[in-house]
Amino acid sequence: MRAICFMSDFGLAGDFVGSCKGVIVSISPRSPIVDITHDIPEFSVIQGAEVLQHATRYMPDGAVYLAVVDPGVGTQRRAVAIATRGGEHLVGPDNGLLTPAAEALGGIERAVHLTNHRYHIEPVSNTFHGRDIFAPAAAHLASGTGMDELGEEIETSTLKRIEIPGAQRTGRELVAEIIDIDRYGNVRLSASMSDLKLDYGSPLLLKVKGEKSMKVTYVETFGSAKPGDLILVPDSHWKLSLAINKGNAARALFLGLGERLRLEIPEEDSPSR
Amino acid sequence: MRAICFMSDFGLAGDFVGSCKGVIVSISPRSPIVDITHDIPEFSVIQGAEVLQHATRYMPDGAVYLAVVDPGVGTQRRAVAIATRGGEHLVGPDNGLLTPAAEALGGIERAVHLTNHRYHIEPVSNTFHGRDIFAPAAAHLASGTGMDELGEEIETSTLKRIEIPGAQRTGRELVAEIIDIDRYGNVRLSASMSDLKLDYGSPLLLKVKGEKSMKVTYVETFGSAKPGDLILVPDSHWKLSLAINKGNAARALFLGLGERLRLEIPEEDSPSR
Amino acid sequence: MRAICFMSDFGLAGDFVGSCKGVIVSISPRSPIVDITHDIPEFSVIQGAEVLQHATRYMPDGAVYLAVVDPGVGTQRRAVAIATRGGEHLVGPDNGLLTPAAEALGGIERAVHLTNHRYHIEPVSNTFHGRDIFAPAAAHLASGTGMDELGEEIETSTLKRIEIPGAQRTGRELVAEIIDIDRYGNVRLSASMSDLKLDYGSPLLLKVKGEKSMKVTYVETFGSAKPGDLILVPDSHWKLSLAINKGNAARALFLGLGERLRLEIPEEDSPSR
Repeated sequence: MRAICFMSDFGLAGDFVGSCKGVIVSISPRSPIVDITHDIPEFSVIQGAEVLQHATRYMPDGAVYLAVVDPGVGTQRRAVAIATRGGEHLVGPDNGLLTPAAEALGGIERAVHLTNHRYHIEPVSNTFHGRDIFAPAAAHLASGTGMDELGEEIETSTLKRIEIPGAQRTGRELVAEIIDIDRYGNVRLSASMSDLKLDYGSPLLLKVKGEKSMKVTYVETFGSAKPGDLILVPDSHWKLSLAINKGNAARALFLGLGERLRLEIPEEDSPSR
Repeated sequence: MRAICFMSDFGLAGDFVGSCKGVIVSISPRSPIVDITHDIPEFSVIQGAEVLQHATRYMPDGAVYLAVVDPGVGTQRRAVAIATRGGEHLVGPDNGLLTPAAEALGGIERAVHLTNHRYHIEPVSNTFHGRDIFAPAAAHLASGTGMDELGEEIETSTLKRIEIPGAQRTGRELVAEIIDIDRYGNVRLSASMSDLKLDYGSPLLLKVKGEKSMKVTYVETFGSAKPGDLILVPDSHWKLSLAINKGNAARALFLGLGERLRLEIPEEDSPSR
Repeated sequence: MRAICFMSDFGLAGDFVGSCKGVIVSISPRSPIVDITHDIPEFSVIQGAEVLQHATRYMPDGAVYLAVVDPGVGTQRRAVAIATRGGEHLVGPDNGLLTPAAEALGGIERAVHLTNHRYHIEPVSNTFHGRDIFAPAAAHLASGTGMDELGEEIETSTLKRIEIPGAQRTGRELVAEIIDIDRYGNVRLSASMSDLKLDYGSPLLLKVKGEKSMKVTYVETFGSAKPGDLILVPDSHWKLSLAINKGNAARALFLGLGERLRLEIPEEDSPSR
């Protein structure tokens, strides 16, 4: 039985996630459900797309992805299901949330617009397609229903695409954006290890807007630094994260989502040395 | 295998929910568990009853409901299991939490007092019947144990009943109570679409105690309004919700649970026009 | 199929837990997963150890425990799997987190160092062994892989041990530490019912550092007191908890984790009476 990997910005405080799961279990009771997370910041399609894309590395082969970050619910944006070349399906709003994950799963093979009312939970709410359109579609796909049943084929080129932020490297300077702050206060940047290409132990200078430069050390893992040290560390998404060993970097430096930071790589520690 | 649909006010910060699930999986390992939510506000039996009643629409047929919002744990309030005419069971405290859901599931057929110690986890804690009495009862029901095994039959007329708040419509005025505020700041009222009977696009006046009237528009969905607009929208429970498109209405208007609001329907937009 | 009982300090706000579950379901799709909790305070190995030890009472026989509170991730601390005499396995960091639970499960039979790369998710992140080393090891054990496959045998005497805080009883005085505060504001002490040996209804004096003594009543359950009363009650872990019936004791008394409290048992209510 195919797994259903479920991500949303619903939070767990209401019955949003629970109602979707009730619908799923009603249709496909033996599908394992993997909750990727339900705490994508509200309406943050880009952050959701980054998390979903990354998560694909760790989810079961042949899974059905149910992903809902949907500020446009009830408007003209389409509800879609995408089949990937790797044999997975993704179900959610056509707002760019699904496409980076679909690319990571081998690329988009085909897509349908979820227009067949037989596979909706009626009456369909205007504010909660997660429960009434997306969850049942995902569950039906997981239990063997074909894409064609769910709605009309659409041109894959018409699917909305979004750009997940990257980093700009110019000489010794790397400019990146804060794309996530986790519960430990670790600050994930939109830059990867490969943007830096630096030996562990190297010092860098961090510039936060309107602040003096701070020294930060590039290390292999949190415990390589003394408690309280400001470090830059490759994190679980293989991105660079600012962290304080056993401390909270976001709180200490007053950092917030979306902020841009500059990292300066001192000459004497360049990778070419 | 019957699903177990689990709702509580335990939160996820401790091991309350986890211990209950350990008990369930020990007894009925193949029952899918659907977490409706565990974030009912502490001790809020009425709010729990509303959420549970609504959730029944989306849960699998023949499910066992395990619901615990139990400020009277360890006192004289009874621990009960209810069988519905529709073939479901509900397990929890006899404080009114279960009865609206039981009615929504076709009505109460019979009930038992969970007095049989053979189906308790011993020793029974005085403060956590969720784990020691309710979870094992639900799991035994899901795996085929009969109601009669669990305890003594009780008169269904002696089950505690509670009233879920509704709304008062007097002429052009609708008075309702705030029954939920979700993570997006959407404010659910104790009034339904049918209390309003209004065309989408109609303007209303909202009166919050001690505040000037505010204009609010009745719309089909969030995205029908401009970002920042104050709207009234039918929500996922088919209740009227105050919302701000891409904003947080509860925070903007300083609204809290239990507050009463007045909605005035202007003459020219009445449904009788 | 063996259940996997999963505890961590990851929180649910990121994709940490979700990625681990994706890995588990990929390897052992039919194992029920019981989330004990993912809200152990960050880096709190001792608190994690206490919760895990307690949880073993309620988890399925023969379960695999996956427990990750791992401030030393990526350093020299070992990644281990432990087999208990009772037939369970525990997987996690060798920092003391697992050993109290292993003792509660019948004692440690043997242990291995998780060095076999064939059972890791490659490349192994330096900051997230939960996903890359521990979760796959737990899932492989649950699906029948032998301990010997996972790595080299280690001397069980070399496993790190920690002390879970207890209480000191001296005459009429009991000194204990705050080891948990739950969502209701109930304050769990490092003292058990057996440290007190007192009749329900007995009054005690509570001394918080720098505060006057307060009267507190030892009761059977929350509802035995009037709303607002300060009480001491045996909690769901069979520990003594300070609570306020329908109130929040931690907030009312400004109490925090790790604080030490003194309870004075008045002469006339001594257990010897």
